[in-house]
Amino acid sequence: MCKTHVLTVSSAKAPFEKSTIERRELRSDDVLIDIKFCGICHSDIHNAYDEWGGGIFPMVPGHEMAGVVTAVGTEVKKFAVGDRVGVGCFVDSCGECDYCLCGEEQYCTKGVVLSYNSYDYDGQLTYGGYSQKIVVKEDFVVRIPDRLDLDVASPLLCAGITTYSPLKKWNAGPGRKVAIVGMGGLGHLAVQYAHAMGAEVTVLSQSMNKKNEAFELGADHYFATSDPATFTELANRFDLILNTVSANLDVDAYLSMLGVDGALVNVGAPTASDKYNVFSLLMKRRSIAGSLVGGIQETQEMLDFSAQHGIAPKIEVIRADQVNEAYERVLRSDVRYRFVIDISTL
Amino acid sequence: MCKTHVLTVSSAKAPFEKSTIERRELRSDDVLIDIKFCGICHSDIHNAYDEWGGGIFPMVPGHEMAGVVTAVGTEVKKFAVGDRVGVGCFVDSCGECDYCLCGEEQYCTKGVVLSYNSYDYDGQLTYGGYSQKIVVKEDFVVRIPDRLDLDVASPLLCAGITTYSPLKKWNAGPGRKVAIVGMGGLGHLAVQYAHAMGAEVTVLSQSMNKKNEAFELGADHYFATSDPATFTELANRFDLILNTVSANLDVDAYLSMLGVDGALVNVGAPTASDKYNVFSLLMKRRSIAGSLVGGIQETQEMLDFSAQHGIAPKIEVIRADQVNEAYERVLRSDVRYRFVIDISTL
Repeated sequence: MCKTHVLTVSSAKAPFEKSTIERRELRSDDVLIDIKFCGICHSDIHNAYDEWGGGIFPMVPGHEMAGVVTAVGTEVKKFAVGDRVGVGCFVDSCGECDYCLCGEEQYCTKGVVLSYNSYDYDGQLTYGGYSQKIVVKEDFVVRIPDRLDLDVASPLLCAGITTYSPLKKWNAGPGRKVAIVGMGGLGHLAVQYAHAMGAEVTVLSQSMNKKNEAFELGADHYFATSDPATFTELANRFDLILNTVSANLDVDAYLSMLGVDGALVNVGAPTASDKYNVFSLLMKRRSIAGSLVGGIQETQEMLDFSAQHGIAPKIEVIRADQVNEAYERVLRSDVRYRFVIDISTL
Repeated sequence: MCKTHVLTVSSAKAPFEKSTIERRELRSDDVLIDIKFCGICHSDIHNAYDEWGGGIFPMVPGHEMAGVVTAVGTEVKKFAVGDRVGVGCFVDSCGECDYCLCGEEQYCTKGVVLSYNSYDYDGQLTYGGYSQKIVVKEDFVVRIPDRLDLDVASPLLCAGITTYSPLKKWNAGPGRKVAIVGMGGLGHLAVQYAHAMGAEVTVLSQSMNKKNEAFELGADHYFATSDPATFTELANRFDLILNTVSANLDVDAYLSMLGVDGALVNVGAPTASDKYNVFSLLMKRRSIAGSLVGGIQETQEMLDFSAQHGIAPKIEVIRADQVNEAYERVLRSDVRYRFVIDISTL
């Protein structure tokens, strides 16, 4: 067992406090990681505020961990002490079902073990990356390319793969018109990926405030969704709309901007239901879909793609004692674009 | 010009009356068809009752026409007098847009000309198949294989292609688990197509009443949606759910029966909006989609496939003076499974 310092919330919406927990003894296929940076994901807030239900407290959030290996189990083959590594949203899966076997562990039939607020197959509650150390099975650890700094790499472990995976799945690429809804933590990465994949990229943001930054990140067009003219001007335009916003939308209005066979793919998760009229789908064979992060192999591919194309999130590094304030700022959309906790301040 | 007898509704929900209209002079690329049978589609009722808005009265519904060519224009190449032919939901399209060029005229950018309740490109209102004669551009006429009787062929022109097209598009075939929601005019054809394509077919019907007929048509399994246990027993089961019901569903409950990458495809069109929770999509990368009939080329393919596999609707042939009563019976689901008007009684 190994004691580690963490940030913990004792109950829903309670402020973060410093505390300690025990990490398990290294098993033969485990690696011990010194976490250097951990990103703050909007879903951390949903969980810490128990907005999705199922919150288990005290909770240590965090599933965007970047750090360095400091010890390895006796059978570990892929990693050595000193390796720069990352851990994302999950830390185990059954390894035997169709989805695990094809590298889509997030859809594991037995149920993937989430990095925090989840029970491991041995019954232990999982604690996430707002923590100095973590012990993880090597198959759920990815390598961070040398060209990516650890602080900017950390948000890629959730925000990066969450946007990269559906863009690939729905064929963002040359000749395809892709819209990104929302220029936040997820959206500003989605713009970079869609651009690097070769698509024509349009940003749909509430206001015109982030226009210049969107163009710097690779957007070709930018429209404000607060202007009703946007929806008529862009009628039937897109092959793919990737919605990164965790709020309810006027779904029919967004569908109206899709051409034949176009897809509105959601990666944000509002708690309330959305509404649509079937006619919005029928008349152009459109679809509404959702996508959940990505598998381990694809996460590695995303990191390598990011390094190769110079893709990185814009981040604001904060101290451990600033997390409570950071949560409030995320809720006010007052961050460009992702908070990352410097774990050395814990 | 040529006068023809028709059934017409003078205003929304008015009873059908016999009347006459003029069909246009044959243009060089037109064929004149003696309609022998015309199916009654649920959308005829939506239109005649003006439930979708946009109803133009007096209206002559009908877009499931089967008949015989009695004259051809000077430049007609594909058809000759005496040919057995069909006309479906639309009678013209621009012929130049990407969708027309790839044989998906139903998604024509300029807007397809519907067989009734629509304006032709020359400004003339279109009148449908509750009529003894119709003049149609040859490119929008399909050939009815000899092995299909004209009465059973007529419902294929809408109900057949509406179900065949999405089953092909979403890869119903060997190794795929397909559910058909509703065992009505569309559903009982969908079961036959999905079975002939090689899929494992489950019927989801309100009650157990149609179980034996479903098995006779090729279903492998049958469940009643009035039993809540159906939804738990079939959790994560299907690759494709084809919803043929024109009523609002508990979308999240139906989505819960889809596996990873599964699709709920709607071909029915309720007027009110449906609701879903994004989590139902996210957690297994599911989608909700819609599909609208099919193109001319695919309609011909569907007719040939039907003849080859012995697929036909079960029909009840009625006289022209029974149409008002037939509409009421459709609304009570009191038909197995499609009404077809014998146009010789008009």
